Amino acid sequence: LLHAWRNLHLPLAEAKVIAAVSGGADSTALLLALDELIKTQELRIELIAAHLDHGLRRQSKADARWVIKLARDLGYQIVNQRVDVGQRARITRDNLEQAARRARYEFLAKTAATFKAQLILTAHTMDDQAETIVLRLLRGSGAEGLAGIEPVRSLLSQTASPRRRLQSASGWGKSSQLLLARPLLNWARRSETEDYCRLRKVDYRSDLMNDDEQFARVRVRKQLLPLMASFNGRIVEALARTAELLRDDLSVLNQQASLLLLAAALGDNAETLPALSVAVLAEAPVAVRRRALRQWILQGRGDLRRHELQHVLAIEKLLLGEKGGRSAELPGGDKVVRRQQRLELSVKKSRNTGGKRARDD
Amino acid sequence: LLHAWRNLHLPLAEAKVIAAVSGGADSTALLLALDELIKTQELRIELIAAHLDHGLRRQSKADARWVIKLARDLGYQIVNQRVDVGQRARITRDNLEQAARRARYEFLAKTAATFKAQLILTAHTMDDQAETIVLRLLRGSGAEGLAGIEPVRSLLSQTASPRRRLQSASGWGKSSQLLLARPLLNWARRSETEDYCRLRKVDYRSDLMNDDEQFARVRVRKQLLPLMASFNGRIVEALARTAELLRDDLSVLNQQASLLLLAAALGDNAETLPALSVAVLAEAPVAVRRRALRQWILQGRGDLRRHELQHVLAIEKLLLGEKGGRSAELPGGDKVVRRQQRLELSVKKSRNTGGKRARDD
Repeated sequence: LLHAWRNLHLPLAEAKVIAAVSGGADSTALLLALDELIKTQELRIELIAAHLDHGLRRQSKADARWVIKLARDLGYQIVNQRVDVGQRARITRDNLEQAARRARYEFLAKTAATFKAQLILTAHTMDDQAETIVLRLLRGSGAEGLAGIEPVRSLLSQTASPRRRLQSASGWGKSSQLLLARPLLNWARRSETEDYCRLRKVDYRSDLMNDDEQFARVRVRKQLLPLMASFNGRIVEALARTAELLRDDLSVLNQQASLLLLAAALGDNAETLPALSVAVLAEAPVAVRRRALRQWILQGRGDLRRHELQHVLAIEKLLLGEKGGRSAELPGGDKVVRRQQRLELSVKKSRNTGGKRARDD
Repeated sequence: LLHAWRNLHLPLAEAKVIAAVSGGADSTALLLALDELIKTQELRIELIAAHLDHGLRRQSKADARWVIKLARDLGYQIVNQRVDVGQRARITRDNLEQAARRARYEFLAKTAATFKAQLILTAHTMDDQAETIVLRLLRGSGAEGLAGIEPVRSLLSQTASPRRRLQSASGWGKSSQLLLARPLLNWARRSETEDYCRLRKVDYRSDLMNDDEQFARVRVRKQLLPLMASFNGRIVEALARTAELLRDDLSVLNQQASLLLLAAALGDNAETLPALSVAVLAEAPVAVRRRALRQWILQGRGDLRRHELQHVLAIEKLLLGEKGGRSAELPGGDKVVRRQQRLELSVKKSRNTGGKRARDD
């Protein structure tokens, strides 16, 4: 863990760190391992455990009590909260998994803000990474999807102005104060987290949903990955390598896209989202142009919820030909309008999105 | 087929075209469909069928006779040849599949040269694409692997000088005379080629190796893809979409790599491979640098056979630190040597490679 910690350039001292602890083997092992590094003074950080009770299962209150006791026994502060994810899912029309994920990251970001923490940790393992990549492959994702879960990413405040966010997009990782990191992702197997809990003689909680084959992720874990392992015994490591290579590619492509977006931006009002030059976009390579358009829409709308390839393709059609006055629909009633040689984003109403919510890791 | 033909910008008239025909449903359907387009004068091309007998199966001579008769009955010239792929595999230490593929493309390139053809066609379908992508994912490939089979690519002559090839790398598709195209790849399913043969009341040959589950590709086809289809009934289309998105990404990344290679090239002897500047390479993003190094090695060695990620990683290590005089081994005894601020490629001996042989499509 310390090795991965250093590789990810996470702070070795003088940081407040929020660790998400569900009580499963992964997050229990992470908490125990952090505890070991703190007590041996390898890490001189202030650790706060955080547990969200999703209110989805009968056992969830008992899980919460168990996590609270574990954290306190180890000597750490713990924040816990209960939400009704089922109700949220009905309101936002997300599925349960998406709604739970959003509730979790909103809770973690809020907790980080309360404690003025610099870092949030989740206990995703290399198995989670492999499952994520396979699920995205099954949907026909591009590099963004197949790059899987990021080991570290910035959570940029939503309070910055669109232009400010636009400008910081190319140097994203450096300009922001709050990081989300998965220090187990690149090396730890799920079975190893179980082993480590046993080694530390600490029990962990089992989530019955992890065995429920009505979830695609569970079927990937129990059926598809084992069949893939019959071709390559190190399939999980192979998928993690693919993800890493694609992340390297994306850092170049996204930087090119940021540069294109700056080159295409018209006007200089730093507080509003700029219109974009049709001519500049039209001659850019598709792989860069599509990402620039996604960044622009993210800046303008605050999120990329339900934003699909088809929406970018519709915007690209506006770039063809000489005519203006046409528009492409975005999810939720927003539109991209072409007026003469300009593309403008028309957002229906201001939404309070509370984070980059389209990221489904 | 005509729609795909136009999308790929293949010549509608005045071209000599070599079609590879094994006698299986895919290539028989391609030949029959081309025949239909030629006889209705939608295509005004000169078509020549080409069949390579790999000498691997008892039935292969009968297959050859069958293909020769089919082509002649339709009124086309046919070139056929027999090779001993088993023997070639023993000499080159390739596996049978690789040796067969190489023998096939060498035969096709030679046939194209003999007839001064501008275009070679193979009958790869969307199913071949899906299988290829899954096989490469199982190995942990990056974007190059997951981009699958290319619908069109240039076969650049090996007689050009290294610098000439280096310079043409960024405009690859335009500067070369011979194209390899797969006009069924982006839309035709294997079952549709069978249907079309039946519609045309023409039989096709079955290859028993297509059912032999000792081949990974057959197990992908018969076990893994059906399981994946239980998650997404349009998995083959989804994988093809992934491949297309990654090809868009690669066209940007490879162009960046070509530009980096030109920027890093030292000296101006157009007939030899240039040494590269350590300083220029060291500050480039890894995704671009690794591709530039691969392009450079391809130019210098003529192929990328047995060239793996590990070899590029070893070269990258040479870029670190101030010291020269170190080297990284390449497959086959070649070396990359760092001397002061230069990287030099030291090729053991000149090989006659007859094409970009590392491309395993």
